[in-house]
Amino acid sequence: MSIIYFDQAASSFPKPNTVANAVAKAINEYGANPGRGGHQLANRASEVIYETRAKLAKLFGEKDPNNVIFCQNATHALNQGIKGFPLEKGDHVISTSYEHNSVRRPLEYLKQEKGIKVTYLKSDINGHISKEDLIGEILPETKLVVTSHGSNLTGAIFPIEMIGSVCKERGISFLVDASQTAGILPIHMEQMNIDMLAFPGHKGLLGPQGTGVLIVNKSVELSPIFHGGTGSHSEQKDQPSERPNRYESGTLNTPGIAGLSAGVDEVVRIGVENIFEHEWELTQYCLEKMNKIDGVTVFGPDSSKKRLAVIPFVIDGTDIQEITMIFDQHYQVALRGGLHCAPLAHETIGTIEAGTIRASFGIYNTKEEIDQFINMIIEIKEGLVG
Amino acid sequence: MSIIYFDQAASSFPKPNTVANAVAKAINEYGANPGRGGHQLANRASEVIYETRAKLAKLFGEKDPNNVIFCQNATHALNQGIKGFPLEKGDHVISTSYEHNSVRRPLEYLKQEKGIKVTYLKSDINGHISKEDLIGEILPETKLVVTSHGSNLTGAIFPIEMIGSVCKERGISFLVDASQTAGILPIHMEQMNIDMLAFPGHKGLLGPQGTGVLIVNKSVELSPIFHGGTGSHSEQKDQPSERPNRYESGTLNTPGIAGLSAGVDEVVRIGVENIFEHEWELTQYCLEKMNKIDGVTVFGPDSSKKRLAVIPFVIDGTDIQEITMIFDQHYQVALRGGLHCAPLAHETIGTIEAGTIRASFGIYNTKEEIDQFINMIIEIKEGLVG
Repeated sequence: MSIIYFDQAASSFPKPNTVANAVAKAINEYGANPGRGGHQLANRASEVIYETRAKLAKLFGEKDPNNVIFCQNATHALNQGIKGFPLEKGDHVISTSYEHNSVRRPLEYLKQEKGIKVTYLKSDINGHISKEDLIGEILPETKLVVTSHGSNLTGAIFPIEMIGSVCKERGISFLVDASQTAGILPIHMEQMNIDMLAFPGHKGLLGPQGTGVLIVNKSVELSPIFHGGTGSHSEQKDQPSERPNRYESGTLNTPGIAGLSAGVDEVVRIGVENIFEHEWELTQYCLEKMNKIDGVTVFGPDSSKKRLAVIPFVIDGTDIQEITMIFDQHYQVALRGGLHCAPLAHETIGTIEAGTIRASFGIYNTKEEIDQFINMIIEIKEGLVG
Repeated sequence: MSIIYFDQAASSFPKPNTVANAVAKAINEYGANPGRGGHQLANRASEVIYETRAKLAKLFGEKDPNNVIFCQNATHALNQGIKGFPLEKGDHVISTSYEHNSVRRPLEYLKQEKGIKVTYLKSDINGHISKEDLIGEILPETKLVVTSHGSNLTGAIFPIEMIGSVCKERGISFLVDASQTAGILPIHMEQMNIDMLAFPGHKGLLGPQGTGVLIVNKSVELSPIFHGGTGSHSEQKDQPSERPNRYESGTLNTPGIAGLSAGVDEVVRIGVENIFEHEWELTQYCLEKMNKIDGVTVFGPDSSKKRLAVIPFVIDGTDIQEITMIFDQHYQVALRGGLHCAPLAHETIGTIEAGTIRASFGIYNTKEEIDQFINMIIEIKEGLVG
């Protein structure tokens, strides 16, 4: 029996064949240090990296490829965006109650270390945040708004366009965590007034693990989180000021970036809109069937509301870890059970104690897999609790 | 004509075939999120990562694999080790005049931001640092010594055993930057009294770019440089305290780590001692021939002194960038010209203005390549300046 992989919100799988090929090619054919060389192999590495910057800039509506900063993962990108942002004691940041720990923990760290203030805006279960609530929380010292574009727990989609326009009007910088949406929902930084966009390469963009990106427009000047060799201005004691070097000390993950480039090509080939359409179809299909099963509780947005392909659920009266293990070992279905690194979101939906099981779908999942999955849920229910 | 790759000090090339295969396998067969899952694919990723920790711990003389922290590169590892170390205003750090910018810039940053004091110990051209000089610089407030194990500019090897024993006696923590030596010189953290060891995966360990490692023994408690999701204790606002999770927020570079594992296997198979022996033989051979050419100046340790396979040189009266370009484009030899991210070291050897050309060799380079290289130098000299 082949594995049904429904843990796409953690890492997309499988990848397009072109991804591993591009990675292997980078390792075997031009494994030199980009931007440090002055020889063909190093130049080829630099070219591949620059091309990938350009593709990502284009995909996300940023004009200058040099504003695309490569990171190890989205957590690194978010830490660079949040801790590198010029915040002083007393400054205020607005975020939401749905944030992943990769946003919440850096903010809590700055609260403790720098004495900044943080407000976590509540959204309703559908991801709705009211403009009035947002405006009501803005203080004269509000410098930054950080919001997720979509929840990794419930799939709720947040109104980043509204938030962006409010930030723009008030001169507040806006950082979006697109960990769950890059490659799945259309994002245009300029049109949506997003100043910083952080995302992983290994989820919706179909690239390999070890890649993350922060795009920072010209309005924001960050302090680098790493200091080190940049291949330029080696004589200075301080980091050079040019992007992207200022933020990319040390050798980049050339093979990973080459793989990400291949992943992005596939996303562009299929089309972001088509990817969302496919995932939304699977999600609706699965929700409809799950809602018909007695004793299965599904969390998250109303069924009719567009959401990401993420379905948190529990089988009433059963243990989450045990059920996740049965799916894994007996049925070969990869799901995830627990708190999903988003405790605030669990508080919001009332599952902070035990968490939920999460099924999340991707572009290569099918209705047939969902049919099988639904039959398994029914079997488990009948065997264990029926 | 095939390329002669003499830029091994920047990134080793080629890699063993097993490396790209292991990376591709990770991407194609278990591209799930390690440690976040509770399903087979995630578990397999976790296992590969743990095995790699265990291999690295063993290779470098550290007992607990959980003290092995995976990073994006050595710069990330050094930033974590230096900026994460508990240093307060007025504390003192000793380093050397040969450090790469990945050590110097973090130290200069802490000098400015936290008001620490830094002393850069001078070594002679052979890498000799006197025990008396070291002891003479130690202050009551000296908390940390950071030294490179070997110079990326001259190949000089530094006496880390002596430094480690002095640090041990005085209760000072010792961080070694093994960027140029991991996989090339024997390193045993416990026997050499090294508390923290930072190194890249993509140089002497023959792994892919995108991998770096910090090993931290139990005597040191670092603050994490990243805050975020750790797949454990998701309900806490703060980072969890367990290693390695505390320092590895976000998704790790599973494919890269799998590739590093294959690289380490190859290093262990050949044997670190044999690798150094081969590289030292090439270096001696090249130095002997270069020293016989009039008008070529070689920098670095005395020819008789054991050093890493790094030879900085200039052809007198010529431009470094131009010569590097001729080697690249006319002869297909990959060298590096410039400051090599180590300005203090250039000051020490008197080449801060224009830098040098650097030839660096690896385990797969041969005497035949060096013969060709020497003939090219002679040709260039005769054509351009002869």
